[in-house]
Amino acid sequence: MPTVPLIEYADASPEAKEVFDAIKAARKVQDVNNFWKALANHPDTLKRTWESLAEVMRPGALDSLTKEMIYIAVSIANNCDYCIHSHTASAFAKGMTKEQYAELLAVVGMAFETNALSTAFKVPVDPQFLVQTETKKEDKP
Amino acid sequence: MPTVPLIEYADASPEAKEVFDAIKAARKVQDVNNFWKALANHPDTLKRTWESLAEVMRPGALDSLTKEMIYIAVSIANNCDYCIHSHTASAFAKGMTKEQYAELLAVVGMAFETNALSTAFKVPVDPQFLVQTETKKEDKP
Amino acid sequence: MPTVPLIEYADASPEAKEVFDAIKAARKVQDVNNFWKALANHPDTLKRTWESLAEVMRPGALDSLTKEMIYIAVSIANNCDYCIHSHTASAFAKGMTKEQYAELLAVVGMAFETNALSTAFKVPVDPQFLVQTETKKEDKP
Amino acid sequence: MPTVPLIEYADASPEAKEVFDAIKAARKVQDVNNFWKALANHPDTLKRTWESLAEVMRPGALDSLTKEMIYIAVSIANNCDYCIHSHTASAFAKGMTKEQYAELLAVVGMAFETNALSTAFKVPVDPQFLVQTETKKEDKP
Amino acid sequence: MPTVPLIEYADASPEAKEVFDAIKAARKVQDVNNFWKALANHPDTLKRTWESLAEVMRPGALDSLTKEMIYIAVSIANNCDYCIHSHTASAFAKGMTKEQYAELLAVVGMAFETNALSTAFKVPVDPQFLVQTETKKEDKP
Amino acid sequence: MPTVPLIEYADASPEAKEVFDAIKAARKVQDVNNFWKALANHPDTLKRTWESLAEVMRPGALDSLTKEMIYIAVSIANNCDYCIHSHTASAFAKGMTKEQYAELLAVVGMAFETNALSTAFKVPVDPQFLVQTETKKEDKP
Repeated sequence: MPTVPLIEYADASPEAKEVFDAIKAARKVQDVNNFWKALANHPDTLKRTWESLAEVMRPGALDSLTKEMIYIAVSIANNCDYCIHSHTASAFAKGMTKEQYAELLAVVGMAFETNALSTAFKVPVDPQFLVQTETKKEDKP
Repeated sequence: MPTVPLIEYADASPEAKEVFDAIKAARKVQDVNNFWKALANHPDTLKRTWESLAEVMRPGALDSLTKEMIYIAVSIANNCDYCIHSHTASAFAKGMTKEQYAELLAVVGMAFETNALSTAFKVPVDPQFLVQTETKKEDKP
Repeated sequence: MPTVPLIEYADASPEAKEVFDAIKAARKVQDVNNFWKALANHPDTLKRTWESLAEVMRPGALDSLTKEMIYIAVSIANNCDYCIHSHTASAFAKGMTKEQYAELLAVVGMAFETNALSTAFKVPVDPQFLVQTETKKEDKP
Repeated sequence: MPTVPLIEYADASPEAKEVFDAIKAARKVQDVNNFWKALANHPDTLKRTWESLAEVMRPGALDSLTKEMIYIAVSIANNCDYCIHSHTASAFAKGMTKEQYAELLAVVGMAFETNALSTAFKVPVDPQFLVQTETKKEDKP
Repeated sequence: MPTVPLIEYADASPEAKEVFDAIKAARKVQDVNNFWKALANHPDTLKRTWESLAEVMRPGALDSLTKEMIYIAVSIANNCDYCIHSHTASAFAKGMTKEQYAELLAVVGMAFETNALSTAFKVPVDPQFLVQTETKKEDKP
Repeated sequence: MPTVPLIEYADASPEAKEVFDAIKAARKVQDVNNFWKALANHPDTLKRTWESLAEVMRPGALDSLTKEMIYIAVSIANNCDYCIHSHTASAFAKGMTKEQYAELLAVVGMAFETNALSTAFKVPVDPQFLVQTETKKEDKP
C-alpha cells in the first residue's frame, strides 16, 4: 500500500495532467504507470522527474536497452522493488534476451561479491588506475 | 591502508602463484593489481573469485564494455572506492568514450533518484510489469 | 510474516510488560505497535531500544516533526518498509503538511542523485568545507 | 583523486560556463565547488543537476536549514564522503547550532538501529499506519 | 512474484537437474528451495553459485552456525527479504537458540548505529588499529 | 578530517570525562579511541552509545569474538571505514585467526552475491522458511 493515494488522470491537477499527456504521447500508452500516479501528488516533482528522465533515457552514446540494464543494476543494488519490476519488464520489452538477462545478473552478483571483498580489505587503489583516468585530462573540453 | 598485507608474487603461496600466473596470462600483464594481492592472503578465496570472475566477465550475450559499465553502476551503488576506480579505468581501457561515461553516470544518478522516490512512496507494482515477465514462462527450457 | 511471533501484552514477560506500559503512557495509546511486539521477544533489546528512542526523539534543539522527517529520510535510504510506513504516518499525525512531505521527498530524491554522482566521480572535498567545520574547534566545551 | 579532471572556469565549455555563472550568482561566491567542476565534464548533466537542485533546495514549505539537515541524513545513509562534508559545512553556514547537529546525528543513529531491527524481524506494518496515510485520499487535488 | 518463472525439477535443463541433484544429496532434502528454482533459468549461474556456496559454507575455521549468523547479518544490512527468511530459518534449524538470535540482532542494531555515527563524523582511523593489522605481516605465507 | 574536533580528555566536559573514565576502566586502556573523542562533542550521545555498546557487546549467548565478527560483517555491508578498521583490529586482538578471518570474508562475499541475485529475481520466500520460524511461537515467554 502506497503512502499516498495513486492519482488517476481524471483526478489529476492541470499541471499533472499535462505531464501525464506528455508521458502517454512519448511512450504511446493509454495510461501512465503507478510511479507517475504516486508522483502526481507532488506535481512539481512529477514534472521535474519526467523531464529529467526523458532527457537521460533518450538513446545517445548508449542505446536504450543498455540504459535499461544499467537502471536494473542500480535498482537491485538499491533494492527498489518497484524499479526492479518496472525496469526488468521494460528491458524485456525493448528486446533484452534471456541470455542477456542471465549475464546481466551474473555481473551484478559478481560485482556485489568483489565490492564486499575490496571494501573489507580496504584495498588501496593501484596507481595505474589513477593514471589511466588522469590521462583523460588531455581530452577535456 | 589495507587490513591485510598485499602479497607480492615472490612471497605468494604456490596456490596463489598459480592464480597470479593465470591472471597475468589472461590479461597479458606483468603484475596483478592490488585486489588480487590482498586476496592472496586467502588462497581459496583468491582462486574461487578469479575463476568466477573470469567466467562471468567473458564476452557472451553482453560485450565486455557493457559488462564493465554494469560493474561500475553496481560499484557506485555499493560505494566501493577501489572498484569504482578499477572498473572505470578498465572501461576506459576497453574503449568507453567520454560521452558513454557521461550517459552512464546520468542514468545511475536518475536511477538513484527514482529508486528513492519509489521506495519512499511504496509504489505498488503495476500488474502489466508482472504479466510481462510472467509471460517469460513460455520460453523456459 | 515476521521471523518471530508478535508478543501481545497478556503474553509478555514482566520486563516487557513494564516497557509496554511505559510506551502506552508516553504515547497515550491503548496498545503498542508491532515493532515493540516483535522486540518483546528480546526484553533487554526492547528496554534499551525504547529508552534510547524516547531520549533521542524528545523535542530539544530540533522539534518533533523535524526529527520524524529526518527519520523518514534515513528509513528511505535504508529501505526499511516498516519504518517508512510508521514514521510517515507519525509525521502526518504530528502535523506534516502535504507540501512539506512533497518537499521532503524531493530533497531525498535529489540527495540520492547527487550522492551517486559525487561517489561515482570520487570528487575531492573542497578545503573550505573542511575549514568551515574545523573552525567549530573554537566552541568546543 | 577524481575519475575525471576538475574543470576550471577558464577551461569550461560555453554551456558549462553559463551554469557556473548561474551558480556563482545564486550563491554569491567567487568560484564553484569541486562537485560542479567534476560535473562540468558532462555539461548536460551539470545543467540538469544544477537546475533541479536549485528548484528543490529553494525554501518553501520547509526552510533551507531543514532541507540541509535532511540532505545530511541521506548522505550519511548513502555514505557519500563529499556530500557529508559539503552539506554539513553548508548547514553550519546556514546557522545549524552544535546542539541541532548533535540531535540530528542522534536521530540518524537511532533510525539506523531501528531500521536494522525492523528489517531483521520483518515486522508487519500495523493497519493504523496504512489507514492514517490512506485517509490522505480526502485531500487529493 | 519473481521476475522469472521458478523452474521445477521436471522442467529443468540437464545441467540444472545435475545441480538440483547435488543440492538434494548434500542437504538431504526432497526438493530444492525457490532460490535455486529461480537460478535454474540461468544454469551457468546456478552451477557456479551452488559450487561456490557449498565451498564457502562448509564448516572450517568457523562452524556452520557462526557462518549462518554472519550470513543473516549481511542479509539484514543488504535488506534481502528472501535471504533474511531463509538464513534465519537455517540458523534456527542448525541450533541457534532464542538467546543467540536476540544477541545477534542486538549486535547488528548497534553496529548500524555506530556505523552511522562514525560515517557522519568521518572519524579518522586511530593509528593503533592500522598497526595492529599491519603486524599481521609477520604471518604472511 | 572529521566534521567535529576530536575532544581530548583534558578538554572534555565533566559528563564526557566520566564516560571516558568508564571506557578506560572497562577496556584497561590509557586513552579512548577517536570514535569516543568525536562523540564527546555530544555528551548525551556519548553516554548513551557507550552504555548501549557495553551492554550489547558483553559476552553472553554469543562470545566476544563472534560478536566482533558480526560487527565486521555489518560494517563492511554499511561500508564504514572507521568501523571496518577498528573492529577488524579488535577481532584480531581477541584471537581471531587468519583462517577465521578468511572464512568470515568469504561468507560475507557470498552473502553479498546471493543477496543481489535473490533481490534481482524477487524470489518468493518458501513456505517452510516461514513455518520454521513460526514454530518458535511455542517457546514464547
